[in-house]
Amino acid sequence: MPLQDDMQIVSVDDHLIEHPRVFSDRLAAKFQDEGPRIIEDEQGRHLWTFEGEIFPYIGLNAVAGKKPEEVGMEPLRFDDMIPGCYDPVARVKDMDVDGVQAAACFPSFPGFGGRVFFNSKNKELGLASLQAWNDFSIDEWCGTDPSRFVPLAILPLWDIDLAVAELKRVAAKGARLVSFPDNPSPLGLPGFSSDHWGPLWDVFEETGIVVSLHFGSGSFVPGFHASAKALRPNFQGEQFKSVSARMGGNADAADDEVPSIATFVVYATNLMWSAVELVFSGQLQKHPRLKFMLAEGGIGWFPYIMERLDLMWERHRHYQPIDFHTRPTDLFKKHFWGCFINDDFGIRNRHEIGIDRITVEIDYPHVDCNWPNSRKVLSESFLDVPDEDVRKMVELNAREVLNFPRV
Amino acid sequence: MPLQDDMQIVSVDDHLIEHPRVFSDRLAAKFQDEGPRIIEDEQGRHLWTFEGEIFPYIGLNAVAGKKPEEVGMEPLRFDDMIPGCYDPVARVKDMDVDGVQAAACFPSFPGFGGRVFFNSKNKELGLASLQAWNDFSIDEWCGTDPSRFVPLAILPLWDIDLAVAELKRVAAKGARLVSFPDNPSPLGLPGFSSDHWGPLWDVFEETGIVVSLHFGSGSFVPGFHASAKALRPNFQGEQFKSVSARMGGNADAADDEVPSIATFVVYATNLMWSAVELVFSGQLQKHPRLKFMLAEGGIGWFPYIMERLDLMWERHRHYQPIDFHTRPTDLFKKHFWGCFINDDFGIRNRHEIGIDRITVEIDYPHVDCNWPNSRKVLSESFLDVPDEDVRKMVELNAREVLNFPRV
Repeated sequence: MPLQDDMQIVSVDDHLIEHPRVFSDRLAAKFQDEGPRIIEDEQGRHLWTFEGEIFPYIGLNAVAGKKPEEVGMEPLRFDDMIPGCYDPVARVKDMDVDGVQAAACFPSFPGFGGRVFFNSKNKELGLASLQAWNDFSIDEWCGTDPSRFVPLAILPLWDIDLAVAELKRVAAKGARLVSFPDNPSPLGLPGFSSDHWGPLWDVFEETGIVVSLHFGSGSFVPGFHASAKALRPNFQGEQFKSVSARMGGNADAADDEVPSIATFVVYATNLMWSAVELVFSGQLQKHPRLKFMLAEGGIGWFPYIMERLDLMWERHRHYQPIDFHTRPTDLFKKHFWGCFINDDFGIRNRHEIGIDRITVEIDYPHVDCNWPNSRKVLSESFLDVPDEDVRKMVELNAREVLNFPRV
Repeated sequence: MPLQDDMQIVSVDDHLIEHPRVFSDRLAAKFQDEGPRIIEDEQGRHLWTFEGEIFPYIGLNAVAGKKPEEVGMEPLRFDDMIPGCYDPVARVKDMDVDGVQAAACFPSFPGFGGRVFFNSKNKELGLASLQAWNDFSIDEWCGTDPSRFVPLAILPLWDIDLAVAELKRVAAKGARLVSFPDNPSPLGLPGFSSDHWGPLWDVFEETGIVVSLHFGSGSFVPGFHASAKALRPNFQGEQFKSVSARMGGNADAADDEVPSIATFVVYATNLMWSAVELVFSGQLQKHPRLKFMLAEGGIGWFPYIMERLDLMWERHRHYQPIDFHTRPTDLFKKHFWGCFINDDFGIRNRHEIGIDRITVEIDYPHVDCNWPNSRKVLSESFLDVPDEDVRKMVELNAREVLNFPRV
């Protein structure tokens, strides 16, 4: 049966666009100049500036409500977006139109996992800005209607003690979800296998807060973009130049650039790596109550990867520095939740994935969301699915793992 | 029904270990010193040397016939391997034991896609060595029993004219399969989207030779290994050192090293990228008869990626520099063949994948092969599969795409 009227959609992955006063309303006077603020350039574009640097897109990919032919063009001013992008009151109305009851909203300007503050030159300012974002997220955005928004926070990962303290602080304010880099290694942080993160995992376990790994939050770009000239020492330079010339291109530009749609298709590969690395990290045995969500990763690949996890473990564990006794799919099924926007193959294989581990995301206001037709699109995907399964996927699983009960 | 006795297994991905005289038997006198040859070091280990460099493993991962507790240890001498690794007469006997009728065998010392010759300092020597390998592969190895070995070659990709000439040369000698880097970009070559490869694709189309993209042949290592200290500028150095110290590790070694088993599990992600990049490259429309095999990539992920290909195309093609009219899954289903060693989820979903696009691999003598039980293991995987489907997957599809008829 399709989606029933009494089923409430809880989205585990939406996005908010920070309005111009998010930081200036909260930062101390000494940080007002260097802290994040909006400026307008000569062409009338709104830009974030932080520590003297310019961040060119105020709402990367915030295109909800645009016509198809406009999609792909970034909003250049706040009045180039619908208010639901940056105004929580308008957002609730847009969720009503879309038939969505609750949503967890990720950061935009700071990066999905807080990368901009991680890269701050003045880490005192970086921490203050990050805390300002968390206060905005939990108090102002979610506070607008606590029954409609799942409180989400980011952490100062450059210092484990600060990260632990901030996690405790946001837990006390009601955080249910933390956006963590999908892979800390490319950011220069210790990887998932390191004991470094243990004190933080302890607090996640104590508080029950979910760790969400969103595609792109680890700043790793899939390998097929590595076609820069710097990588071509063994290739004959004259030939390469003539290729570029033949294509009518700039001599410094490769003619083999991969269109970004290819990256969209393989989003999930980063999260496959994250999950597999965590499964073999040894950390899940030390932190049995840790909960990970794989945001914007789809679910149709879960059975393939699970089969390979066990197959490789059965074959290779004898000589690998990994747990000899715990079956990797037991760890995977226990610790990981997936979500999807559209994934009919995944829905058909929901019982191989684990019906209790599937949630949905809306991805408002990004280009892949189905707004204002999310409920309609999901309903069509569920035509052959029993009510009991649908209810778990769209609502109950998310409410349970996020500790976000129906009011 | 399980595998029937009259079904012949044709493996599209096995490996040969070059014996010590492969190059010395064929190279001109002036190249004998610098060309590839086997030396024995003070510990009695056999090593390849080429252009003054040492290559430490003669048969990476050539462990067929070893006990489980020995697996993972590389063979250090030829007499540390079973003869089937490097002797085609013994290989045929091992294939008989395993119930395998025919096999395509990839290079070992040169790298799956010929990387070692691509990196040669003296490209004249590199070309001579590469041609020696092809002559060995086609004339000596496959020539031992042409009904049992599918002729496979590698190409001098550093020069498109040489590559075209070598492809024509090996085509005339009967090559059916060429091992091409699964992604040329990380090698410093133009990517799949470049017109650079057009003249080579033309010859592949004319000759009907299949392009095999084997995991690892593009030398790209999945991103989660990027945990080198060089990547840690924003992480506090003192903390990182103390982490290493606490773990009892070397100060220069990360405590977060990912065990290689994690890479084994996500092998296929590289090939997902390769296929998706090719689908959006524009080259398949220009070369409608090109045929790609994804070697050691499994098949269980095909439906998930195909669904995403079309979904992203329907949504994003309006503003992307891609073909507006051709549905990507039509290109995918037309141009790509998959194979598996073990992939029960893929077998269950064989009709969503495309029953005509599935083949099998044995992967002898590598650690993931089921030798000497390949036929038994496959038979168990096919218990619920109709004979007609099994016959296509284990034999008919490979014979047709490789133009390798039953004798």
